[in-house]
Parts: sequence; structure tokens; C-alpha cells
Amino acid sequence: MFQDKIIIDGLQYCHWDREYFQTLLASGITAVHATIVYHEDARQTLTRFAEWNRHFEQNSDLIMPIHSMADVEQAKLQGKVGIFFGAQNCSPIDDEIGLVEVMRRQGLLIMQLTYNNQSLLATGCYEQQDSGVTRFGRQVIEEMNRVGMIIDMSHSAERSTLETIELSSRPICISHANPSFAHNALRNKSHAVIEALTKRGGLIGFSLYPFHLPNGSQCRLEDFCQMVAETAERYGVDHLGIGSDLCLNQPQHVLEWMRNGRWSKSMDYGEGSATNSGWPEALPWFDGRQGFENIYTGLLKFGFSDHEAGKILGTNWLTFLTNGLKAHS
Amino acid sequence: MFQDKIIIDGLQYCHWDREYFQTLLASGITAVHATIVYHEDARQTLTRFAEWNRHFEQNSDLIMPIHSMADVEQAKLQGKVGIFFGAQNCSPIDDEIGLVEVMRRQGLLIMQLTYNNQSLLATGCYEQQDSGVTRFGRQVIEEMNRVGMIIDMSHSAERSTLETIELSSRPICISHANPSFAHNALRNKSHAVIEALTKRGGLIGFSLYPFHLPNGSQCRLEDFCQMVAETAERYGVDHLGIGSDLCLNQPQHVLEWMRNGRWSKSMDYGEGSATNSGWPEALPWFDGRQGFENIYTGLLKFGFSDHEAGKILGTNWLTFLTNGLKAHS
Repeated sequence: MFQDKIIIDGLQYCHWDREYFQTLLASGITAVHATIVYHEDARQTLTRFAEWNRHFEQNSDLIMPIHSMADVEQAKLQGKVGIFFGAQNCSPIDDEIGLVEVMRRQGLLIMQLTYNNQSLLATGCYEQQDSGVTRFGRQVIEEMNRVGMIIDMSHSAERSTLETIELSSRPICISHANPSFAHNALRNKSHAVIEALTKRGGLIGFSLYPFHLPNGSQCRLEDFCQMVAETAERYGVDHLGIGSDLCLNQPQHVLEWMRNGRWSKSMDYGEGSATNSGWPEALPWFDGRQGFENIYTGLLKFGFSDHEAGKILGTNWLTFLTNGLKAHS
Repeated sequence: MFQDKIIIDGLQYCHWDREYFQTLLASGITAVHATIVYHEDARQTLTRFAEWNRHFEQNSDLIMPIHSMADVEQAKLQGKVGIFFGAQNCSPIDDEIGLVEVMRRQGLLIMQLTYNNQSLLATGCYEQQDSGVTRFGRQVIEEMNRVGMIIDMSHSAERSTLETIELSSRPICISHANPSFAHNALRNKSHAVIEALTKRGGLIGFSLYPFHLPNGSQCRLEDFCQMVAETAERYGVDHLGIGSDLCLNQPQHVLEWMRNGRWSKSMDYGEGSATNSGWPEALPWFDGRQGFENIYTGLLKFGFSDHEAGKILGTNWLTFLTNGLKAHS
């Protein structure tokens, strides 16, 4: 039954307010990986944490912070939505290796090594040249492994991703992307990447961002479940989760900031284009309310058992994060 | 017996290295309040935390971080010295109320509202005019009360201190200063302050910095214990601790930085003077090795019971901090 399950969304960046927290709770989601920063440096990241602390203070009847996966069980018991944090870029650590542990303690559980562009650590998926993991990148991978901060390569380029999977002593994730076989896009992942990732115990979260889906905003629930079924057949059901990339109620200027940060003088359209520069039209069957329940029903129709559907919708993330967040002694 | 006791030093700013951690451990100290910043802003404070994380990583056989007072019992059991952090100034929160909770989570358990000069929160003890607690200061006091960060007024001026005691819903501390009756100095505290502090459940830690003591570096153990005995008689033994202000192995430039930060173009000599600008000569009976044991022996000679001496040397701090660090719900 859907209601009994631990449901985890492996990535959202919605406009966070009380109304949306109520929507989240009603949707049946137990815990969400919330993007806390895209481009913010260490100092600015502290302000983002402060803003979230205020959300927790003002909405303690609806949401609670997740510092370890034991808190997810608590959220389920208390009927609240747990929130845990990740960065879509390595900007929160500036150029300082010691900030990995500092940010981990602050509550940054997950960090991408790159966001589309070249970073100090590795190459993003929109660069022409992928030079792989940098000198600083190697040390940061080792340090993230040591303190138990999850490595996420969703927005990274192929070679950088393969090298990171190899260099990391612990499984990594691609929190929100789809297999290229379902839809060929710079942000989606090749067979080579998904195979290497899953063989090392990593996890890929299926994205519901229309740009990552076959037929974009016209992608039907059946098309999505078909993709999940094929991926499960190829790589096994234990390595799959959902990372919806849901960005509800965000204005155009947020999308432009995500794409351009402070780095671009000319408008960068990311996955869009000059003639298609806005947010993609939302999927009618995944709109923040019944999306996870719809996927649950869809997966059962595609032959997944209740237990398997539960894994994909949450317990695979729970197991992966529980292991990945432990500090190495 | 001294060896059975929980011994807490309520303030040190030594040159932290492996050799000194060995000295600390041998001295019988269970836990130390280490000053982590004097003048550093929020961003620089993160680097100080990162440096301490490195100390913990490299010296895990000698020291451990204290995030709650339960960790102090662990330190005693494991035969390590526990380290907990405080700021001598409010610089770690910049001008941002939300950074109180952020810094508390990072491990900043104690914060002074001022360091000698006027701050954004209140007035320091070396200013000519003491205008009391500021608008921002009132909000920070309330926020520190809420999240369980200890207010310390060691370097604050009289009116600001009295107002803070009154405004704070929780007991505060003066971690390192002596009563003015023992030695009249700008950094020492009046009867009015100590009475108000202790009546509200606050704690004062006796300083062993020679500038705060009768006869300076010539202060004998007996003189020190006499001061403790008189203070206990006036205000009760439950409100007293030690905050040694020990600054071992620090070069002259650190003293100058403590006094001048980045704010002064002319040399400020703090408690010293142009003709006496260096570190004061250390007390031979309190040199980082047997200091606490010497005080224990001295207190027994002055008629304190073993239990009372244990309170002054550690368990009063332990009780005060245990209560003060709890978050208000």
C-alpha cells in the first residue's frame, strides 16, 4: 500500500513556503532532498541554511530537518515531511578542503561536483571538453568519502563521472537524470555511466523534468514507467530511485539565475532555447500532489511488486543514504 | 580525589598543537572551552572550525569535540580532553540574526556579545560610554536563549552586562574575570554585576591571567584561593568556576592581534601599556601542567570540602552548560 511506504524524492527545488509544505505533506512524501544552493559560495550558503532554519521554526507542524536517516523514520512516525539538503554545485566549499566537513556538519548531506560548467573539481555536462577530475577534485572526493557526504554527478560530464565513480571509495549517486536510451540529452546518462555507477552500488534517481523525458511535457505515465521497467531490467531494481527535479512555483528569473548564475553576460538557455526559454509545461500526472502515488500505481501495472515499487519510491534511497552518510573512522 | 573529578577550564586560548594537547591531558583537565575566534567574521570562522576539525582528525587519541555535555562524560571515560568552542566577540554572526543558529549547529556553544570595544550588540569594557544593549543585541539575546547558545559577558561593560542579565531569559556567564574587590581592573566585575549574575543562576569563572589578579604575576596560590573563598562566601559556591584565560605558547604578534584586530591604526595595549606591552609573566603554580591540581589542593586548605572543590573545578560548569545548551522548544 502506498500510504505505508517511506517515500523519498531525491531532488526538488520548489518555491518553499507554508502552502507548498502542506502540498508536500498531502502528497505522501516522507522526505525530500532539497537543493539548498546552485551558485552560492560558503558565506552565502550559511544564509541559505539560516533561511531554512526559519522555515523549520515557522512550520514545525509540517516539516523537520533530516540530519541522519534515523530522522526519516521519525518524520514518518510524526506525520511530517523530512527535509535534507544538497548542493547542485561545489560552490559551498569555495576553494577550501576543510569546508567539506564544515558543510557536512551544517547539514549538507549531498554535493554535486559540478553544475553544467567546469568547476574547481570536475567538468560539467555542457562543456565542450571534459578534462576529468582535477587535482582539488581528487582530494574533495576522498574527503567526502571520509566524512560521509554523498557525491552526486547529475550535472557532470561523462569522463568526469566515470573517473569519479572509479576514484570514490564509496558508491555515488546521480540524483536526478534519466538513461540516454529513453531520451538522448546532454543531462541524461549513457549506458557506460549507469553500468559503472550501479555496479559499484550507486543509485540513479529518475527525473520528471520534462526536458529529460521522452516526448517532454507530453510524456505519459506509461512512458515513464516503461523507462523505469527497462532500466530495472538492465541494471537491477535495487539501484533506482526518484529524483523528480520538481521546481514548482518558481518564477522565470529563478530559472535564468539557475542557468546563468553570475558567470554569463549573454543569456544561457540551458536545456531550453531562445524560442523556448521558459519553464517546461508540467506533467499533468506529476504536479506535486499525487505524483508519487500515480507512479506507484503505474509501476504495479508494469509488473513491479508492491515491495519493488516501495524500493524505487523510497527505500533504495533510504538504504543508499544510510550507508553513504556514515563517517569513516 | 582530584583524579576522579570532572575538571573544566572555562576559557583558554593556547597555541593548539599536539604537544600542548599532551600537556592538557596530563594536567587532568576533562574539557576546555577553547576560544575559536576573536575578530573573525562568519566566513573566517568556518576556516577556524576547519582547522579544529583537522586537529581532531590528527590527534584523535588525545582530544575530542564536545557538542553536548554528555560528550564530557565520554571524554572522561575515554581518557581524552574534550574541546568545546566559544567566540570572544559576536563577529561570527556578522550582522545576521540567522547565523546564531547556524553557528550553534557548527559547534559554537558560547559567544561573548562584545570584545572590549563597542559591537553591534552591546558595549565593551574599554569604551568610555556604555550605551547598553542595542536593538540587534536584544534580538540576538532572545535568539541565543532560543537555540541554547551561552551568553558570555567577560569583556563587556557594566551597564551592558546588567541589561543582558535582565534581558536574558536564561542564566548567562562571565567565563573569565575576577571580582573587583580582589583586584580593581576594567576587566574585573563589580559587586552589582556578580550579584545580579549569580542571583539569576549565572556563573563566573575565575581568571588566572595575571592582569586580573591581585599582585599580578606575583599572585600566590593562597591569594587566589582567598579570593575564591571570599567570593563563595558572598555569592555561594554553586556559581563559581574556573576560566583560566591561559594563553600558553602564543607569540607577541598574537597578543597584538587580540588587542588591535583590524580596527586600530595606533597600537592598542589593552591591559598592558607601552612600557609593559608583552604577555605577563606566567604564574609558577599555574603553568598548564599542575595548575588545576594545585588549586584543588589550595581550596581544601582553605576549608572547602572535596565536593565543593569539585564543583568549582568543573561540575558547576557542567551543570550550567548542560542547562544552558538545551534548545528551547
